[in-house]
Amino acid sequence: MTPAEQAAMARARELGLRVLGTTSPNPPVGAVLLDAAGTVVGEGATSPPGGPHAEVQALAQAGERARGGTAVVTLEPCAHTGRTGPCADALVAAGVARVVVAVPEPTRLAGGGAARLRAAGIDVELGAEQAEAELGALAAWLTGVTEHRPHVVWKVASTLDGRVAAADGTSRWITGPEARAEVHRLRAGCDAVLVGSGTALADDPQLTVRDAEGRNVERQPLRVVLDRRGRVPATARVHDDAAPTHVSRAADPAALLAELHDRDVRRVLLEGGPTLAAAFLAAGLVDEAVVHVAPQLLGAGTPLVGDLGISTITSALHLHVTDVTRLGGDVQIRLRSTRHTGGPGPTGGGS
Amino acid sequence: MTPAEQAAMARARELGLRVLGTTSPNPPVGAVLLDAAGTVVGEGATSPPGGPHAEVQALAQAGERARGGTAVVTLEPCAHTGRTGPCADALVAAGVARVVVAVPEPTRLAGGGAARLRAAGIDVELGAEQAEAELGALAAWLTGVTEHRPHVVWKVASTLDGRVAAADGTSRWITGPEARAEVHRLRAGCDAVLVGSGTALADDPQLTVRDAEGRNVERQPLRVVLDRRGRVPATARVHDDAAPTHVSRAADPAALLAELHDRDVRRVLLEGGPTLAAAFLAAGLVDEAVVHVAPQLLGAGTPLVGDLGISTITSALHLHVTDVTRLGGDVQIRLRSTRHTGGPGPTGGGS
Ligand SMILES: NC(=O)c1ccc[n+]([C@@H]2O[C@H](COP(=O)([O-])OP(=O)(O)OC[C@H]3O[C@@H](n4cnc5c(N)ncnc54)[C@H](OP(=O)(O)O)[C@@H]3O)[C@@H](O)[C@H]2O)c1
Ligand SMILES: NC(=O)c1ccc[n+]([C@@H]2O[C@H](COP(=O)([O-])OP(=O)(O)OC[C@H]3O[C@@H](n4cnc5c(N)ncnc54)[C@H](OP(=O)(O)O)[C@@H]3O)[C@@H](O)[C@H]2O)c1
Repeated sequence: MTPAEQAAMARARELGLRVLGTTSPNPPVGAVLLDAAGTVVGEGATSPPGGPHAEVQALAQAGERARGGTAVVTLEPCAHTGRTGPCADALVAAGVARVVVAVPEPTRLAGGGAARLRAAGIDVELGAEQAEAELGALAAWLTGVTEHRPHVVWKVASTLDGRVAAADGTSRWITGPEARAEVHRLRAGCDAVLVGSGTALADDPQLTVRDAEGRNVERQPLRVVLDRRGRVPATARVHDDAAPTHVSRAADPAALLAELHDRDVRRVLLEGGPTLAAAFLAAGLVDEAVVHVAPQLLGAGTPLVGDLGISTITSALHLHVTDVTRLGGDVQIRLRSTRHTGGPGPTGGGS
Repeated sequence: MTPAEQAAMARARELGLRVLGTTSPNPPVGAVLLDAAGTVVGEGATSPPGGPHAEVQALAQAGERARGGTAVVTLEPCAHTGRTGPCADALVAAGVARVVVAVPEPTRLAGGGAARLRAAGIDVELGAEQAEAELGALAAWLTGVTEHRPHVVWKVASTLDGRVAAADGTSRWITGPEARAEVHRLRAGCDAVLVGSGTALADDPQLTVRDAEGRNVERQPLRVVLDRRGRVPATARVHDDAAPTHVSRAADPAALLAELHDRDVRRVLLEGGPTLAAAFLAAGLVDEAVVHVAPQLLGAGTPLVGDLGISTITSALHLHVTDVTRLGGDVQIRLRSTRHTGGPGPTGGGS
């Protein structure tokens, strides 16, 4: 990759992140077109299902300036005709000279794009900064491809001493407005938001994406309540008409995720509580975690996560910190399952 | 302050931090001398008790170049003759033209330095970046002056879900080598290190300052065990000859701090466990906290802090985050009591 192509790849990853949560079951791809001199002449990201793919959008912007230029994309252009025509053919028709790809297409159905481009005489580089792209916007979609289940992001707001509610059950508000606003951004990047019946009953959350003024935005993720005994009443806020809701009686996390995968959900935000979080963690079904730590101490109350069947320190479940940020007066710690980073497994040795 | 004086003040604060833990009961002061052109010609910091003060060291370095120059110091130069002569007189004798001071001397005994300097025709600026200096190296000494007790820094290593030991009592090692090395730096900056009998019995810690090779360094803080029932045996490692040890039977945290103040302790590192931490927190006797969060989950085990008598979220004890750093795979969150930042009190409203 040239320096211009590297900058374009970073931008393409960013474009992919911007459409996270709006493209499922399709991958959130980013694309940047450079002309022969290396100047950016087009940008694109995957549209909602049925709309144009990232490359097609970028080509449309570039027009004639694409000829002899380079397309930089986070995922290998598809070679199959789905709801839209093959992107590989569109790149050939536009006369691009080179295509730089981060992640090779992992599905047989859409594969063959690179081969088709090369057959047309286009220079193709595969695997450019592949790891960065795989850990970015495409992570959830790739989990779906390899594990046939949605990618699970567990979000929790806790005190410094690991309490998510006080002894009397109160939990509003542990974190400040900046952290709470971030939760709405997290929801917007997911296809579904999930709670257990315990949280639905205790907190009666609406589980919608709201803007800074508290208004529900247009596109809403699916609200999901895991309520095996049908305890959550029809009057609960999660059943209002602000967004669609799915009540599941799935026996375990894996069965629930299978249900959601069938509904085209590729990224789900697990918003608690501790019982459901423990069930997902124990099953190895948490891919990422976002912990909002408030600088408060309670000394008692509901623990952040329920029993995991772990009794000694060397059996602790290990995650990997990917980012630490201050959000107002609170601290956000983002983590990833060690499965995704090549580190020791969930029951690996002490660090 | 001129830009050169501002830079000198930042450097003086840093010089003070470097001698933290070595000057008690004297304040850890930093001093920088500028010549008439604003060039640094001398630096100093408080020596261990009996040794020269910061200003005297800086003057010695500067020699004749101090004449007509400016002394920049974190604390008002003393006017009394203790184990060393008055610093104010030394500055007059050296012929400095101006003295910039961050914190006015708060004790009557040592006060009067600015007046003596002014009487000698020296231009004195008091209160320069005072808040920064007060929250820095001088914080603990100032707590001693205003509250007649040592400043308490509570240090704890916890999992993400607020556990300091697993269900079977094991806690070695929750955090990685970088965080553990930082604990030795924290100890070195304190006059005493404190644990309860529960921690002494469960973990048998040595509580010394060790270098990167694990060797005990020369200067060791006083080891303190709060053991009202005399349960910790003479064979415990805390009783080895690597450092002095004080076993206290004080009835409560305030009584213990009074004992330590009488022994010239001005900064104490409270290293646990949860029972003792809760006692100090409930008494409002924690000034700073350093929490090392390991990206691990246990789902059970000893909680970070014992019962605080808090049952509802609006009564949570609030701290204020001052710094967040990654230490290897772990996260260090530094906090300050809201008392020290003008925020809401320990039982203030929700954020
Ligand atoms: N601070 C935060 O971020 C946060 C977030 C969420 C909740 N909370 C707090 O957490 C508390 C609620 O905790 P919780 O643990 O009761 O809530 P929860 O985890 O949301 O709900 C637990 C319930 O989920 C149902 N469930 C369905 N499938 C399950 C499975 N496979 N495994 C386990 N449970 C399953 C069970 O009821 P059925 O058997 O009837 O299905 C179970 O009782 C509240 O105080 C709330 O305020 C805090
Ligand atoms: N991860 C970490 O950073 C960390 C740090 C420390 C400890 N720990 C863990 O914490 C556990 C020990 O916890 P712990 O709570 O038993 O230890 P602790 O707080 O160190 O000791 C508690 C004992 O301190 C004595 N004490 C003296 N004065 C007291 C007062 N005013 N108020 C309350 N207690 C007073 C009490 O015994 P007497 O009545 O006999 O005096 C009490 O039983 C161990 O598992 C250890 O591994 C972890």
